[in-house]
Amino acid sequence: MLLADIGNSYFHLFDKDKKIIKHLEFKELDKYKEKEVFYICVNPNIETKIKEFKCWHKIDISLNGEYKGMGIDRKALCLNYENGLFIDAGSAITIDKMKNAEYKGGTILLGLKAHLKAYENISIKLKTTLNKNISLNNLPKNTQDNISYAILEPLKLIIEKEKEKNIYFTGGDGKFLSRLFKNAIYDEFLVFKGMQKAVKKGLIC
Amino acid sequence: MLLADIGNSYFHLFDKDKKIIKHLEFKELDKYKEKEVFYICVNPNIETKIKEFKCWHKIDISLNGEYKGMGIDRKALCLNYENGLFIDAGSAITIDKMKNAEYKGGTILLGLKAHLKAYENISIKLKTTLNKNISLNNLPKNTQDNISYAILEPLKLIIEKEKEKNIYFTGGDGKFLSRLFKNAIYDEFLVFKGMQKAVKKGLIC
Repeated sequence: MLLADIGNSYFHLFDKDKKIIKHLEFKELDKYKEKEVFYICVNPNIETKIKEFKCWHKIDISLNGEYKGMGIDRKALCLNYENGLFIDAGSAITIDKMKNAEYKGGTILLGLKAHLKAYENISIKLKTTLNKNISLNNLPKNTQDNISYAILEPLKLIIEKEKEKNIYFTGGDGKFLSRLFKNAIYDEFLVFKGMQKAVKKGLIC
Repeated sequence: MLLADIGNSYFHLFDKDKKIIKHLEFKELDKYKEKEVFYICVNPNIETKIKEFKCWHKIDISLNGEYKGMGIDRKALCLNYENGLFIDAGSAITIDKMKNAEYKGGTILLGLKAHLKAYENISIKLKTTLNKNISLNNLPKNTQDNISYAILEPLKLIIEKEKEKNIYFTGGDGKFLSRLFKNAIYDEFLVFKGMQKAVKKGLIC
């Protein structure tokens, strides 16, 4: 089974049997048009094209408690488990909460790169890299750590505030960020697993 | 007495007797060159010019526990009280901590405008305004509040983590942000009051 997560700039194709994710440009789409693919899509332009592919099936997910306009990729993540915090750390960092199979709300933090870039845009003096080994116990005493603390500690505090023992990370920075928590689980396939679950439940348009 | 806080784009002139701050462009500097002015400066180009003004005196501050390269405006803020958190909410939001007259560290968050702009730079779908009336009790359920929560709640949690009862705000967004805390004090003159204290202590180059 092939699953496609279609974003704004790329599409991500998951081969369930080989357990491989390919990150592809849209010009590669045609190569897969004869294959059977289940997809989610946040890109209206690409969706128009895909609707002509007869073997492609659109996944549609409704969560109890969801809000209008909630991203389908976030819904796929939340479908994985009935309880937990689901964090997708990419260009933005989404945090979503499920409790007894009901959606309880979420937040969107800046992704690590976007966050660092925003400091640089304020002043060249605030241009720095992330100190991934910073201690978050105390307020730090140099510019790089001042900023690294401001990027990492909020994520930690917002997640800890929810007092949720099931914490699931995915996305490009998910592996690193999951290490800030004792019991967090990192799973690069989590969006696709949610999509698989949707397919099994027959949630197809 | 006139006090000048010279930034990267403007200089801010405080008339102690009239209790007025003027926000001025650098081309206005010459008008004040015959006046007696005590100043702090983070702008090396402007400093070269000012050194020719015979009645202008540079304030220099050392704090116990300070780090090398700490901004003079942050040091002026911290000079105000021996204990407390000092928050300057402008294009960036600096938070600095003093305990028994010793500097204990700080952090630099993005300013409100810079933070919102950074979301817009990720995706036009994340372009929004700040919901200043958002409830921070629970994770919210729409994009504007998802983002407003991610901007305001970290500031609240980082400050609350310090368990410091003396919380002082200044800067353009200081008044609004101070309302997130029960006992916070907003004082638009706080940097200048710190500078005044430095002058009284004779901390002049």
